[in-house]
Amino acid sequence: MSIVWESRYALRTQDMTSSVIREILKLTQRPEVISFAGGLPAAEYFPVERFREACERVLADTQAHRALQYSPTDGYPPLRELIAGWMCQQGAPVTADNILITSGSQQALSLIGALLINPGERVLVEEPTYLGAIQAWSAYQAQYVGVPTDDQGIRVDQVPDALRCGPKFMYILPNFQNPAGVTISHDRRVELVRLSQEYGVPILEDDPYGALRFENEHLPPIIALGSEANASDVIYLSTFSKTLAPGLRIAWVAAPQAVIARLIQLKQGVDLHTSSFDQMVIYETAKDGFIDQHVSQLREVYRKRRDTMLAALDRFAPPEVSWTHPDGGLFLWMHLPKGIPVEALFKEAVKRDVAFVPGTAFFTGPNPPPTARLNFSCMGEDQIIEGIRRLCETIQTMQATLDPALSREVE
Amino acid sequence: MSIVWESRYALRTQDMTSSVIREILKLTQRPEVISFAGGLPAAEYFPVERFREACERVLADTQAHRALQYSPTDGYPPLRELIAGWMCQQGAPVTADNILITSGSQQALSLIGALLINPGERVLVEEPTYLGAIQAWSAYQAQYVGVPTDDQGIRVDQVPDALRCGPKFMYILPNFQNPAGVTISHDRRVELVRLSQEYGVPILEDDPYGALRFENEHLPPIIALGSEANASDVIYLSTFSKTLAPGLRIAWVAAPQAVIARLIQLKQGVDLHTSSFDQMVIYETAKDGFIDQHVSQLREVYRKRRDTMLAALDRFAPPEVSWTHPDGGLFLWMHLPKGIPVEALFKEAVKRDVAFVPGTAFFTGPNPPPTARLNFSCMGEDQIIEGIRRLCETIQTMQATLDPALSREVE
Repeated sequence: MSIVWESRYALRTQDMTSSVIREILKLTQRPEVISFAGGLPAAEYFPVERFREACERVLADTQAHRALQYSPTDGYPPLRELIAGWMCQQGAPVTADNILITSGSQQALSLIGALLINPGERVLVEEPTYLGAIQAWSAYQAQYVGVPTDDQGIRVDQVPDALRCGPKFMYILPNFQNPAGVTISHDRRVELVRLSQEYGVPILEDDPYGALRFENEHLPPIIALGSEANASDVIYLSTFSKTLAPGLRIAWVAAPQAVIARLIQLKQGVDLHTSSFDQMVIYETAKDGFIDQHVSQLREVYRKRRDTMLAALDRFAPPEVSWTHPDGGLFLWMHLPKGIPVEALFKEAVKRDVAFVPGTAFFTGPNPPPTARLNFSCMGEDQIIEGIRRLCETIQTMQATLDPALSREVE
Repeated sequence: MSIVWESRYALRTQDMTSSVIREILKLTQRPEVISFAGGLPAAEYFPVERFREACERVLADTQAHRALQYSPTDGYPPLRELIAGWMCQQGAPVTADNILITSGSQQALSLIGALLINPGERVLVEEPTYLGAIQAWSAYQAQYVGVPTDDQGIRVDQVPDALRCGPKFMYILPNFQNPAGVTISHDRRVELVRLSQEYGVPILEDDPYGALRFENEHLPPIIALGSEANASDVIYLSTFSKTLAPGLRIAWVAAPQAVIARLIQLKQGVDLHTSSFDQMVIYETAKDGFIDQHVSQLREVYRKRRDTMLAALDRFAPPEVSWTHPDGGLFLWMHLPKGIPVEALFKEAVKRDVAFVPGTAFFTGPNPPPTARLNFSCMGEDQIIEGIRRLCETIQTMQATLDPALSREVE
């Protein structure tokens, strides 16, 4: 008798989320496709030479044994010190004891799910919100309470109603949100802190893109607002994936020590510790101000690419399409004409060798509006123009085939 | 109002398992302690020069962008090919499609827990068994059915009774088991496969040490026994942590494709993928037969250290103490006099600057016998002799203070 795994260990059916990610990963490997789908940093700007020097230092006789050996779960102390220093500069009241190194921010999201979510409990999320968080928390059978966003980020006027549904925490992406590219205004950040205190619901602030601002003033992170006591109700996440390189999977959590202690215990069970080697390589790469110089360069590159995409949209997009104007980050968000079936558009676009992520994947509630996430960081300007041209042409072709009743509804 | 995380999000109380690991990690950092507690490979034999060359190749212009970028969840294809090739040589019917790269074997254990264990479900384990597995599965509220081991490994005559308790799978460590150092005989492996088929209960074969055999003949892994159909009921785990270096956290699962597909989905949610960089560095280090040469050297070093420990025990141990004679791996297992309180012995030993892991941590059932796990891989021979001398002296001192009634029971 051979054991039939599929029927014996039937897990939940593969959901939309996961199949879209799979599709995207496949697409990014087909060279003829202009893909706005991934969230990839620009590989041609990876600081390879600096990584080479960092590896030499890490594998020098004085350090090699440490880099190749098991290490404590909380992370490489000099890296935790470096991160705590930056966060203090931004006004967050943390020390290295508040920092846990994780294997990418995805692991941080997963650990926080394990810590906080019992089956059926709710999380307050922005609509749309980050796909990877939904994926991490589906393992803990989370339910969601969605709050809409506009050009200034989450609609704080609608947060109290959502808080009255009893969510365990609020999941907030403050800067150049993935997927919508919007930034939460300073006033709204302050209001979120106030509501967190009033309702006793903590905030999970996920900030992978904060350093990649192209224009307007830097806003303090939520963890830096309010009193030191308030900061203890915020868990903050960030990563080196967008500022140095995602391949090494080095990210961090900043949180009250009581939370860090629990997360360390959970992390011991899931992977013992993050690669000692990668932590030391990232430290040696980032240190002595290198990361700031490097991020300045990235900001210039990404700003130009965003401008190219915005200009191409102005030129090619049909009048029924609108889009966000991100102040930084990697993504913009397209609102499509009402009648457009987004999945069908996605398939048609792929036939024409251009890809995006259907917005549906980023909504937790029913009847998501027709939207698309477009990445502008990982392609040259000519490709961006050509890709937008193809995409807009695909939209127009689909509009022409729409039921006239639906088309009318659009106007 | 500041949120009180401890009371609001009270998780289970920190258990024994985790506090012992914490104690161990602390001890390994106090240089005056001779620690037989950790499971550390010999750092002075890490192939540092080879790692340097590997980093140069990985960060050469042709490969660097790939090493630093996001990569697919299943792992770096050349590494998966290399592993599949070795496993085929050992008779396991697998291809690269059966291999998933994980962030250490700890992650593989955790993912398998997420895949197979619903709260309250049982796992058949050897008594004693690997601590890290218990830690990984406690997150899924596993229950255990323990089967005793002897010098030939798990007592297969007692497995049917345990299988009748309805465990979800059997967790088997075939070679130089952590903690007991024992190896499951060929006949018992065959019997386990037969029982797996008869009862329809799959086997999880965890084999981190298989390559580190010092004497006697290599035994085929359980996944290689029986027909190809039978092999589909075995999930096999191994790692580069003991053969190259643990700091990079590169391990693998070999399993039927249906299982791999589920594990990939789960891994996406917990860390997206294992470090692209580390996977490529491990591949470049291991390839072209280097790993075999290197492991030959390690076998010599570890064999000498084991022999030194065995000889020191012969010389210093009181007559009431016995121990296993491992054919390979990193650990031996000490049976202590019946009346000895192991936790107290541990504390007393640490005062005398020698450490081990109390055997209690490795048992899932009640009333574990007094035992100790001793690691022989990470210390020079002089230190091993001195450490064993101190440990045996501590045992003798404690024996002398024992209640005479208990002491009599020993004889």
